[in-house]
Formats: sequence, structure tokens, C-alpha cells
Amino acid sequence: MRQVVMHGPGNVQVEQRQDPKIIEPTDAIIRLSATCICGSDLWPYRGAEPVDHQVMGHEYVGVVEQIGDDVHTVEVGDFVVGSFWASDNTCEICRAGYQAYCVHRVLMGTIGTQAERARVPLADGTLVATPGMPDPSLIPSLMAASDVLGTGWFAAVAAEAGPGKTVAVVGDGAVGLLGVLAAKQLGAERIIAVSRHADRQALAREFGATDIVEERGDAGVARVKDLTDGLGAHSVIEAVGTQEAMMQAIRSTRPGGHVGFVGVSHDVAIPGDELFMAGVHLHGGPAPVRRFLPELVQLIWDRKIDPGKVFDLTLPLDRAAEGYRAMDERTAVKVLLTV
Amino acid sequence: MRQVVMHGPGNVQVEQRQDPKIIEPTDAIIRLSATCICGSDLWPYRGAEPVDHQVMGHEYVGVVEQIGDDVHTVEVGDFVVGSFWASDNTCEICRAGYQAYCVHRVLMGTIGTQAERARVPLADGTLVATPGMPDPSLIPSLMAASDVLGTGWFAAVAAEAGPGKTVAVVGDGAVGLLGVLAAKQLGAERIIAVSRHADRQALAREFGATDIVEERGDAGVARVKDLTDGLGAHSVIEAVGTQEAMMQAIRSTRPGGHVGFVGVSHDVAIPGDELFMAGVHLHGGPAPVRRFLPELVQLIWDRKIDPGKVFDLTLPLDRAAEGYRAMDERTAVKVLLTV
Repeated sequence: MRQVVMHGPGNVQVEQRQDPKIIEPTDAIIRLSATCICGSDLWPYRGAEPVDHQVMGHEYVGVVEQIGDDVHTVEVGDFVVGSFWASDNTCEICRAGYQAYCVHRVLMGTIGTQAERARVPLADGTLVATPGMPDPSLIPSLMAASDVLGTGWFAAVAAEAGPGKTVAVVGDGAVGLLGVLAAKQLGAERIIAVSRHADRQALAREFGATDIVEERGDAGVARVKDLTDGLGAHSVIEAVGTQEAMMQAIRSTRPGGHVGFVGVSHDVAIPGDELFMAGVHLHGGPAPVRRFLPELVQLIWDRKIDPGKVFDLTLPLDRAAEGYRAMDERTAVKVLLTV
Repeated sequence: MRQVVMHGPGNVQVEQRQDPKIIEPTDAIIRLSATCICGSDLWPYRGAEPVDHQVMGHEYVGVVEQIGDDVHTVEVGDFVVGSFWASDNTCEICRAGYQAYCVHRVLMGTIGTQAERARVPLADGTLVATPGMPDPSLIPSLMAASDVLGTGWFAAVAAEAGPGKTVAVVGDGAVGLLGVLAAKQLGAERIIAVSRHADRQALAREFGATDIVEERGDAGVARVKDLTDGLGAHSVIEAVGTQEAMMQAIRSTRPGGHVGFVGVSHDVAIPGDELFMAGVHLHGGPAPVRRFLPELVQLIWDRKIDPGKVFDLTLPLDRAAEGYRAMDERTAVKVLLTV
């Protein structure tokens, strides 16, 4: 089968590799309908994380082709969505809603889903079947549920977005934009998107943003304070992963407010004295997307949300390298790869 | 009147100073019945914070002697307890339960309550009157409510201690010990106190600790994991303020669990990548003690809790210097000063 391999920074190739096989009786093999490139894939692409002939991709939707003997909740032929962490969904941590920390978790990125087929460990816990075979127009949104929507949703939940709340979103990538969508769905009264790009601002507004702030860093903080009687937002989503974004998020939050951070943290150190004096709640990390998947799949199936709009470039898997380049150069927000 | 003044590190004196006067119509003047020395007073005492002829003390109970024209909820003759932040208790931040960040807040430490009398700004919002004149045996516990109990309580609430939860407490000072008491009151199933001092361990057990861990740092983390099926505690209270204690707290918490941190942060930097991967909730800072005061005063009045036990040394105000020395040398957990 064909599979995307990153040979080194900036060097993405599509290669012929062995088809995956069932290893554990709890595995399933899926034939991918689509996969995509994640903002976090850009860290190794840009040399900010080590990479050496690494299979890529951790987002996936597709059809179950084969199941192990111990798989009971999905069947061959089902159309399924899963998260970037395979999880048993039965351990104490999973039951508490933190499937990204399942005691048996497997990182799908080590398997690589930018490929024609993929082995999904812990299939019963990991995969959620759609109510039927989806209309092709639903594929991008179901694809988004696999990571960026689930991550933006978790960020909004972690930030306790809800009725009566003002939510600020730092980061206008796919996750930040879907954090806006999530905040809107969760009932937020006012949603401030931090973005300086007209196209992303437009999508943010379409997803529910009521205000746009173009300034970054402390100037961005000052604008959010201006918009909130000097107090700061109740809820702030951090969807970048840099020191500047994290501090902008913390400083934009009122005392007692909530920061939900999901940008993969790079070279960030949070000063204890400032956090102490800020009085905010801080929660985040790799999103337990599985917690939200059944609800998100249903919202998409019922066409109540259209998160697939974050994909502004669609390419066949063979042209994955072009997709990486487009996201690196920010000519695309998010690239869908058809298989 | 007599008032405690810290001339410089290690140099505490009791001086004659002017009696306080009503400045704002929302002020009250109280005659202190007792005051005390806070663990945070040791930072300047030890030279870890600058200090130069600073009035000291921010904890207080006493009798209202005089009120401004705009004070309506307390009367001359009332016995009152207040927090270390004066707060209006009516602004949006106060109403959300974060009185330590009241938009009109005044830090009582700048007024100095290790004194015979003190001016309390925003008296209506700040002071809580007891149901009557307290029996002298209740004074230490009411005194504790002013800060250490309220702070330990906030830490336990921030850590979401409650039924079915395992709570670990890092720090065996007065706040940590009262964090144990608070966790017990909030219904925690299991309470692990981190302490290597026999007398503090005994008090922790009396307050509700079910397990004691003597190890610090990563060894302490390993012990907590051993006690929790390798997962970590649901709730962890950090009541020290050092890098080691903060990291011990974060690492002792299971993914999705809650850290409540109230140790005044000194030279702490939280690595973003580790916090990201930990998946914990982090909340803390100066405790909004006022939020909890009515409930705490009632629990004390009804003799359901006895937080005053943390005071293991009582001295007259004139001997404040001895009290500082005892706390600095850890021969006393917490010193009550009678006025």
C-alpha cells in the first residue's frame, strides 16, 4: 500500500509499504477514505522536533476491512471515526473521560494513518461507527472530528465555555477555528477570535466569532480586556503552543476564569509567581477526543455543524508533499488527503 | 497602640504607633482579640522577599470599635473575622467567588494586623460577624479561618476534593494540615499527607489523613503512585510554593485530576511540555477566603471542626519576635499572638 513517510525535515514522500495485519485480537484494519495533515505534523517538518523516516498521520476515517477475534462493537463494512490515541475506553482513566491517557493507549502517529490502510489497536474502545455509510459531503467533517474538531471541542470544554460566557480564542489554525465553533455550540455569549488573516477571520465569524482581535501578545491582552470591562474573558482557548500564546491566554483570562490549552507546547515555561497571582484555572494537553466522538459524529450526521470547512485544500494522498508545503507556508489552513 | 514592624530580615520589633482612624466611610476599626504569624511572613523574614520597616500581619479577629457612615452589615461591638484581602463582595469578580481579586481589593498586609487595632477597608464586604461573642476556646479556630483554614479549604476545593476521591497534600505547614481537614470535611475517601515530622503527621492524622508519605520529590511521587494503582491521586494540594513541591504535586496527580496550589510561589517555572503531557487541572493562587468564611465560621461555632489546633505556640503580641523565630526554626507550626 501507499504510505506517507517523512524522511527528514521538509522531506515528505509517498512510498510503497506492506499492508498492515492484525497483530492483537483487539485490532481492526481499516481502509481509509480520507486522512489529513495536522498542525502538529509541521513541528518535525520544520525541524522543531526530530524526525527520521517516520510514518506520518494520526487522523483517519474509513471502512473496517478486517477485525480481530476480540472485536465486538464494530463490524467489517462499518464506516468508522477514531481519535489519534487508541484507547480501551474501559480503564479508570478512560471512564473519567481522559482516553488520551488510557492505561493501554497507543499513539496512532506511530502507526501512521496517512496511508491507504491502517491497523487500529483497541478497536472496540477506539472506533465509533457512523449510523450508516456517509454521504461524501460529510467526509471532511467526520475527518475533522478525528482530531481538530475533537481538540477544539476539548479546549472549549476545558475553558468552560458556556452560556453567559465571553470566550477568547488564541490561535487561528484549524483547532482554534473549531474552538470557536465548539464555544458557539456550547452556548457562549460572546466569542473573540484572535487572528490577523482575513480568510481565517471570515471562517471564525462563520463559526460564531462575534469579535476579532488582530493584536498579539500584550497588545492582544489589552484588546481583550477592553472588550470585557477590564476584567478579561471568562474562558480562553490556547491553540498555538508557544510561550507568547500561552502567556497571552493566561493574561487574557479574568481571575477565576478558565484557560483551555491544546497547542502542543514547545519551549514554554509558565512563571509560577504570575500564574499564582493570575488566579486562573489551567487545563489542557492532548485532547481526549474519544470522549466527545459520539456526540460530534451525531452533530455532523444531523448537519448541525460543518467543521469540514476548515479544509481549504484537498489533494490525493500521492500529493501529500504539496499539502505539507501549503500548510507550512500557511497558504492552506488544513489539508485533506483523499485515499 | 502597639504594632509589629519588620525592620529587616530577621529583625522583628513591637513599636508604639498611631491608632488607626476611619479614612473611607466604608472602613471599620477593630480592636484585635488575636492575630497570628503566617508562613508567608517568613519569606521576608528569611530575606527571600525585600522588607524595610514593614508593618506585618494580615490575619485578624476582633471586636468592631468604630464604623464609617457607609457601613451597614456590621455594628460596633460585633465580633468579626475577615480575610487577608479586603473586598467589596459585590463586584463581578467577587460574585464569581474570587474575592481575593475584587476590583477594589486592599491587601490587609499593607495595613498590618499584628497590632492592637486595625483599619478594615470595605468592612461590609470584608467582615463576617460571629453569631455572638465567642467563647475564648473558639478564638484560635476563628483566627485560623482568617487565612490558613480558608486557604487550605480553597486548595481542597480547587483540587476538587470530594467523595470517592484520593487527595494528596504536599506541605505539612498549617495550610497543608488544614488542607487535610478540608479534604476530610469535603468527603474525600483517602487523604495522603506528605510529611516527615512526627508531630505534624500526628496532627494530619487527627485532621483526617489516612496515609503518610515521608518522601519528597520524585520519591514522594512514586509513593503516591504506589498507593493509587499507579495512576496518581485524583486531587493534590500544593501548600509550599517551591519548584520541587509544585512538580511533586503535578506529578502526583492522575491525568484529568486536579492540583490546587496555594503555596506562595517562589522561583517556580512550570515546563509547558510536561504540563501539556500531564493532563491535569491546575488552579490556585491567593485564596478567596471570604467566599468560604460564613460556612467556616458556622462549622467552628458548632464545634464541628477545630482548626485552631494548628496553633502550637501562643504568645502575647509583645513577644512577636519569639514567635517569628519559632516558626523560622520550625519549632512551631503556627503562632497565635494574643492582643
